[in-house]
Amino acid sequence: MQLRQVVLTGDRPTGRLHLGHYVGSLKNRVALQAQHDCFVMIADTQALTDNFDDPKRITESVVGVCKDYLAVGIDPMKSTVFIQSMVPELFELTSYFLNLVSVARLERNPTVKSELQQKGFADSITAGFLCYPVSQAADITAFKATLVPVGDDQLPLIEVTNEIVRRFNRIYCKEVLVEAEAVLSNIRRLVGIDGQTKACKSLGNAIFLSDPSEVIRQKINSMYTDPNHVKVSDPGRVEGNVVFAYLDAFLDDKSELDDLKSRYRRGGLGDTVIKSILNDAVQALLAPIRDRMELVKDDDIKDMLREGSERARTVATHTVSEVRDAIGFGYDNCKT
Amino acid sequence: MQLRQVVLTGDRPTGRLHLGHYVGSLKNRVALQAQHDCFVMIADTQALTDNFDDPKRITESVVGVCKDYLAVGIDPMKSTVFIQSMVPELFELTSYFLNLVSVARLERNPTVKSELQQKGFADSITAGFLCYPVSQAADITAFKATLVPVGDDQLPLIEVTNEIVRRFNRIYCKEVLVEAEAVLSNIRRLVGIDGQTKACKSLGNAIFLSDPSEVIRQKINSMYTDPNHVKVSDPGRVEGNVVFAYLDAFLDDKSELDDLKSRYRRGGLGDTVIKSILNDAVQALLAPIRDRMELVKDDDIKDMLREGSERARTVATHTVSEVRDAIGFGYDNCKT
Repeated sequence: MQLRQVVLTGDRPTGRLHLGHYVGSLKNRVALQAQHDCFVMIADTQALTDNFDDPKRITESVVGVCKDYLAVGIDPMKSTVFIQSMVPELFELTSYFLNLVSVARLERNPTVKSELQQKGFADSITAGFLCYPVSQAADITAFKATLVPVGDDQLPLIEVTNEIVRRFNRIYCKEVLVEAEAVLSNIRRLVGIDGQTKACKSLGNAIFLSDPSEVIRQKINSMYTDPNHVKVSDPGRVEGNVVFAYLDAFLDDKSELDDLKSRYRRGGLGDTVIKSILNDAVQALLAPIRDRMELVKDDDIKDMLREGSERARTVATHTVSEVRDAIGFGYDNCKT
Repeated sequence: MQLRQVVLTGDRPTGRLHLGHYVGSLKNRVALQAQHDCFVMIADTQALTDNFDDPKRITESVVGVCKDYLAVGIDPMKSTVFIQSMVPELFELTSYFLNLVSVARLERNPTVKSELQQKGFADSITAGFLCYPVSQAADITAFKATLVPVGDDQLPLIEVTNEIVRRFNRIYCKEVLVEAEAVLSNIRRLVGIDGQTKACKSLGNAIFLSDPSEVIRQKINSMYTDPNHVKVSDPGRVEGNVVFAYLDAFLDDKSELDDLKSRYRRGGLGDTVIKSILNDAVQALLAPIRDRMELVKDDDIKDMLREGSERARTVATHTVSEVRDAIGFGYDNCKT
């Protein structure tokens, strides 16, 4: 990972971004943009695959997501932030790639399988949802991304992409597309404040980057700890304790963290204290982000998206043109 | 069918066109273009779904198909002839529509099912092939076609299209898309000259519009008749007799045809005679077509495709823009 590489990353715009996004990807992106060419995609088309009957949820989230991006430090001078549907060349690539993947292969995809179970529409799965890994392969290859930051549950998606890349280059006898490498996030997926599942916009169990200070405090106070840790003097469990899961992610001083853990295990450290420490850490992290968020102007967002989508489109158009030439769909004589 | 309507029709470019195309669709198209707005699509992208590993077969067929079109009388002043992949808006519509059809629905499609059997890749069906009815729905709706000439085996495809249309308009609360009506061809599908199957480019059992006179004569001479009709004096069967199937399609004088059939059934009419009559009819039909074919210049084809694809793109772009607005993917502020 020494040379300058191309990174593709992004989010489905289905609500504001939260601490799970921050530790899982946003923080990493801000670091990556200093070294690499980053394309940050607001995946409205992909979000449509499981929100096709509620497109407002998507379109009304775009501006908020952009605010979050700018506030955490994604810099439009360094990263190309764009809206997926504003780069229609991605639709074309998807169509070509659909011929290179069997239905059986898509149905076997573990990521799709588990998402289907989670969403409970295994029986009525739409063609769009089944095929979204192919559209993702189009997103990655359109920009010739070589690094794709993902969670470990998304590794099978990168595999599908690379299978398509190899198949395309072999069948059409041109090294047009490049394989991508998954970059795993250092931080494991952040649990929800209810401790039940991962922090998730749709489950309402997340601390949003845009939450006011008081809301953050309330959410932290409501966090599950150890149900058997009733009195302060009781020994407590650190494992499966939501507050410690968050402290792991947000307390920078690791020796302080180790100290807290042993005191909690021994007994004598109250939930109020650890929640207060967590609150301080999260408030310290989010206060400057919230401050920057307030300075973001509508025009900043418009400019970022207009320029980003234009830049992304230029790159994708170039790739599509190479792809067409490889297939033989050049038809130079008919071009308008 | 009184008012001027929009017709979408076309062919997968996988070889020259033959008599089966002529009676099944080309003749009808020439009639339709006088009354209606006809869009004639050279479906290269669709052809790719089952020829993705042999794209040359497609790209090398485009010019020939255009020659055949011009020779039979498709008039670029009346019909908009275009190449599917030159109208990339169709890819975008396909992506949105994929969310409106379940995988189960596509797998149940009888047309797709029987094509899969025919091609023998039921187990390794690609996502592109499974989804081609959705891409066809995009083709039809992009031009707001209300009439689609089809063979009866393609009726399920029009059903899928209309389901998508109704679903789209209902979910996005706008009457953007219009339903299409299937126009069934008068002539049943023409059998191959081997009598085994339908006339089919890939089976090499067809008389091509571009076949030289002598080749036509040879192909007609090689046609299966009635294997039990050994001597001229033997009674012969008309049903299942390839020569009579072709006479049904190409002999304009129906009383002469009835007369031939009864004489053949009685015995006393030789295969050589009926083949010679068929040869005269087919030669009379194809000679002027072949003459016109020789007059077609490369520039005529280029002009037709350039202007046609441009015109088609204008219409499709308008529809896509309405579709985006209905979904909410307008993002006017970000447009470049």
